[in-house]
Order: sequence, then structure tokens, then C-alpha cells
Amino acid sequence: MKLNSTPKQDGFYMPSELSEHKCTYLLWPERPDNWRGGAKPAQKAFREVVEKIAKHEPVVLGVNSSQYAHVLGMNMKNVSVVEISNNDSWIRDTGATMVVNDQGEMRAVDWEFNGYGGLVNGIYFPWDLDDAIAAKMAAIEKVDRYRTEGFVLEGGSVHSDGEGTLLVTEETLLDEGRNPGKSKEEIEKFLLDYCGAEKVLWIPYGIYKDEDTNGHVDNICQFVAPGKVVLAWEDNVDDPQHERSQVDYEYLVNQTDAKGRRLEITKIHVPNVVTITKEESEGVDVVEGTFPRNEGDRLPASYINYYNCNGAIILPVFNDPHDEEAVRTLQGLFPDRVIETVYAREILLGGGNIHCITQQVPKA
Amino acid sequence: MKLNSTPKQDGFYMPSELSEHKCTYLLWPERPDNWRGGAKPAQKAFREVVEKIAKHEPVVLGVNSSQYAHVLGMNMKNVSVVEISNNDSWIRDTGATMVVNDQGEMRAVDWEFNGYGGLVNGIYFPWDLDDAIAAKMAAIEKVDRYRTEGFVLEGGSVHSDGEGTLLVTEETLLDEGRNPGKSKEEIEKFLLDYCGAEKVLWIPYGIYKDEDTNGHVDNICQFVAPGKVVLAWEDNVDDPQHERSQVDYEYLVNQTDAKGRRLEITKIHVPNVVTITKEESEGVDVVEGTFPRNEGDRLPASYINYYNCNGAIILPVFNDPHDEEAVRTLQGLFPDRVIETVYAREILLGGGNIHCITQQVPKA
Repeated sequence: MKLNSTPKQDGFYMPSELSEHKCTYLLWPERPDNWRGGAKPAQKAFREVVEKIAKHEPVVLGVNSSQYAHVLGMNMKNVSVVEISNNDSWIRDTGATMVVNDQGEMRAVDWEFNGYGGLVNGIYFPWDLDDAIAAKMAAIEKVDRYRTEGFVLEGGSVHSDGEGTLLVTEETLLDEGRNPGKSKEEIEKFLLDYCGAEKVLWIPYGIYKDEDTNGHVDNICQFVAPGKVVLAWEDNVDDPQHERSQVDYEYLVNQTDAKGRRLEITKIHVPNVVTITKEESEGVDVVEGTFPRNEGDRLPASYINYYNCNGAIILPVFNDPHDEEAVRTLQGLFPDRVIETVYAREILLGGGNIHCITQQVPKA
Repeated sequence: MKLNSTPKQDGFYMPSELSEHKCTYLLWPERPDNWRGGAKPAQKAFREVVEKIAKHEPVVLGVNSSQYAHVLGMNMKNVSVVEISNNDSWIRDTGATMVVNDQGEMRAVDWEFNGYGGLVNGIYFPWDLDDAIAAKMAAIEKVDRYRTEGFVLEGGSVHSDGEGTLLVTEETLLDEGRNPGKSKEEIEKFLLDYCGAEKVLWIPYGIYKDEDTNGHVDNICQFVAPGKVVLAWEDNVDDPQHERSQVDYEYLVNQTDAKGRRLEITKIHVPNVVTITKEESEGVDVVEGTFPRNEGDRLPASYINYYNCNGAIILPVFNDPHDEEAVRTLQGLFPDRVIETVYAREILLGGGNIHCITQQVPKA
């Protein structure tokens, strides 16, 4: 059922992605005006992500009716293939944010979704199926649901440490396509009410050229523990990413979290610049109203867009000299987790990465 | 995952519908070439069934994408609205038959479905979405699945007492549109293997004019306990139903079940003849290839098509003089269950009744 209160009023909060999961949801990519080659190369990469997560926890894979028989026929172990009609496959942004309470109950937050900016700067039209995904996820998990009528948010634009602190970027949250007319204070109140949190840390910038999402936090910064974050970094002062990361670092280093802790920041260098090739660009159907993928466009490549599942980290890699350092750094931070790498160029070509295509359901 | 063994090999069996349920699945009616008035009157009746079941156990309601927002907006208590694309709404026939074992595990049987007779005498085309419903139900329940490749069956054509005995009709099971080329013995073996049972009771006939289903057992006879059945009855010897019921009675009274018990048979008189009115017929879109609903056609009205949910019986009634006797008889047989009646003419107009539109998931 749809509830008319807020998670905070009812004692529910968004747990850390690092706490134990019941399962992970993904959606199957399909739209040929975003994924080159009829989405076939992307499907191969998504399948690798699905199967690597399924080694560690159950996966629920949502599929449009048109691809259902094909995906069901893969008969993947520990994977439930359900029907969830979608406009695109970014369930981090369109799925439910599950919240829990101290009695071990779970509920869903169903954020209003408008295609990353609605008619102002959204990246596809329509987005009606995507806006219904959170409700469908709640229904499959048989939990009650909060709907944020009049408040637009993508799940990838907020992280929670599970102890009262949220991480967001100003770039996304204050974007004119999301909640025009709402002040920063009003937006902060919505966030705190629906994530059941106490404090929002407002990082200024996301990754350079992350234009689809207007700079989602989940590509630039992520909690590795309460009070500890990893931040995407660029040493080269001539690259526009350097200044962005530098400004974010200076913001974070001067903050305390909801518990009064100063943040410990680990930098993870971004890969070398990735741009769309001619062949890749030509493989995408050109459709008016969908964000174009032009030859030479720089992609927002970052290792920070990894996913934490039970006992493992699913890490995008790029056949890049920085891959090894990213693996080493994360393995150092998580000695007990397996680092599963996936060559993720095909996911990046669609505008996001592994964190963007996953959505956890916590074990309540 | 899809399994390559059979339930019987693995120690799984189909429990009685009377054993405790986890939840009940239904599908939302929509196709205007079967349901008059754009399915709106039927939707009202289905909603009443949903809400009456939801008083007693959780309901999962599968809906085509086109009706999703509408149904979600009803915000019905104890009802999860999931997306399940369907050609029509007979989940008794198209849903998974759940099987359990003595260790409390559950799996799904996904019967091959061909629209009640395929290209021989099926009642609509295509039936691809309906054939995928059982897999989707298994996925939502996160259970493994047996698929009966090359064996066609609708769930409404078999009852199980949960103690080794199945009830079917020869009319449906031996129909040339289901499994042509298979002998009665081969069909019986499939049934026993996939329902994990020992003995099949082959009732000759279903209800007169039950042409959509070719005489499904769930409209003529149902277990009320192991060794005890109710049978649809007609006193009037001039009505074709009389001889059918009489032949079935004589068959049943001479049988023993898998445990060697003779059957105790309680007769429940059918309602007076129900025929389609001119207005009702004209409300249905005429579509070539879909079973027509013509003015004056006799409908297969029967009280036996009731549904057993936790603590209740959901009973179709027809504003008929026989309604009261049906309620009284069932209340006598089930003193501890609430008899919830639903005026079910609109469901009957579509070709079935309350049992046909429900599918239980047992509590494993």
C-alpha cells in the first residue's frame, strides 16, 4: 500500500549499501537509441554483471516483455527473471530505495522520476514506465511504499552511510530540471525525511561531462564505511576533472558527518580519457528527443561507480593503466570482500556504470 | 532456474488447495474482445474478488502495463500490484502450479499453455504472454521451475487432494487440441510425474456448454477433503446437464482414491440456465479468432467454481434460487470457513468463474 507519512516519521531509514542484502535488482538494457548495436553488446556486459553478483547474492532481473523469453532462456543460476517494463535500464535511479527500521521491517521509497530533468533537460521521453519501476519493485518485495509526490530524485544522486549522513552533489540536486522553485533547504528536508537521515553533505561537483545525470554523486564519491569515503581523483591539473575533484576534496575535508566525525578520504584516480568512437556512435539509433552519443564525446569514466554486494565489490574496469591501482586501493579498504572486475566500456557508452544499473534490497 | 527433472523424481507434490496459503495470484481482465464494455464491469467483479480474498490472505495482482497506474491507484489493502503481461486473466489455467516437499521447500510447475486448444480449437490467438505467466510467477516467488516441454495443460483441468489423488475430466485432458498423439496412459504419466501423485480419477464430463475449456474439472467437481468431493448437479432430467452429472456420479461412486478410500460425494445443484443477453453480447468487440459471445448462448454456470483461501470460501452466486442452498451446503461442509459470496455474472460472461481467476501459492 501507499503510505501518506514519511519514513522519518515512522522510524525508517536508508541503510548503507554495505549492510547485508536480501537481493539485487537490475533491468535488462534494450533501447537501440541509447545502446549501440540493438543493445546486444551492452546486454553481454549486463549479463556479466548479473552473473558476478549472483555468485554472491540472489539477483532479480527485470525485463521488458519483448525480451522476456530470451532472457529466461539463459537460465542463469540464482537469478529470477521478472517482468518490469522500462524506458531504460538505470534501476539505481528508477528503482525503489528500500528503508528499514530497528524492528527489522522494510518499506520502499518511490521517488518521483522525470527522465533526468523532465522537459527542461531530460535525456529521453517518455519516462512513464521508468517512473512506475519503484512501485513494481515494492510489489514484488511485498512491502508498503512511500511516494514522494512533487519531489523528483534519482536514487543514484544520494548515498547513505546508514548512520544519519547523506552524500549528494549540488550539481544534480539543485539542477533546474528536477525540482524548480524549491530551495536548497526544502530539498534537504525532503531528503532527510525520506531517507530517515540527519545531515546532508553537499559535494559541489560530479564527474566532468556526466551530462546525462548532471553529475550524480555515485560516480564521484561513495561511502566505504561511516566516516570514510572514496573520491574520484585526477592528478593532471590541465584536465577539467582535476579542479572538480579538488573542490570536492576541499569541501569534504572541512565537513563533519551527523555523528560529528571528520571524514577520512581515499582518492581513486580516474582512468585516462574515454571518448566515443565513430563505430560506437554509428551503432546508436538517432532519435529526436533522446540524448545523442556523438563520435568524440568524452564519457564520464570513473571507478567510483562500483557496486557493493554481499562479500564482494563489482568494479568497472576499462583496460586502462589505472585499473590495477583501483583494484589495489579497494582491496586494501575491503580486505574481506572479493573484488570482481567487469570490463564496462559498453555500460559506460550508455551513460552510466555498474552502480547505476544495480539496486539493492537490504536484508530487513 | 529451470530444472530438468520432475517433481515426482525430486519428492515434490501438489498440495491440496485447502492447505494453508502464502498468498493468492490473480490477473486483471482487460481484453475487450472477451470482456464486455471494455472490461469495466468485469474489472469491478474481479476487484470484489481481490478484496474479499485480501481480507483472508495476501493477494498478488498481475496487471498489463497499460492498466498498471489505474490499478495501483486503487491502493487496495493486502494487495501487491505487479506487472504480468497477459493475453487474458485466467491465472488458474496459465499460472504456476506450486509443488512442495516434506522439507518445506516450494517449486513451480510451468505447464505448456496453448490457448485452450491451440490451432485446433483454441479460443484466442496469440497466447504467448499467457504461456509466460507461470515463469513470471515463479520468478516473483523466487522458486525454481519445472517446464513441461511438449505437454499441454491448464491448471483448471486438475485438482489434487494432496494425498496422491488427482481429479480430471476426460473431456479436457483427451481433447484433440491439447496433446494430440498422446495416449491416455502417457497423459496420466505426465500428470502423476508433475503433480507428484499416485492415481488419477478420470471423470467423463465437465459442465454442459463449458466450451471455452472443453469441460474443465474445476467447474464440475472439487475436493472438500481427501476422500470427499462436491459435484455439480441438475435434477431436471430434460436438461443436458442432468445426464452428464449422473454419468460423473456413477463413475465417482465406483472409484477408490490413492489411499484406497471410497469417495463421499455431495451434490450441489447448478443455478437455473444462464444465457447471454443481447446487450451483453453487443458489448464485446467482435474479433476474428477470438471465441464469440453470442446472444442466447448458454453459459456454464456452476457453484463448484469457488475458491478456497485461508479461512474462507469465495463463492460465485447468480441471484438465483439455488444460491442459498449452495451457501448452506458449503457452510455445512466447512463450519470453520467464512463463505464470501460474489455476484459473478460478469466473470461467467468471460467464460469462467472465481476458481478460474485465482491461483494459490501454498505456505511451504
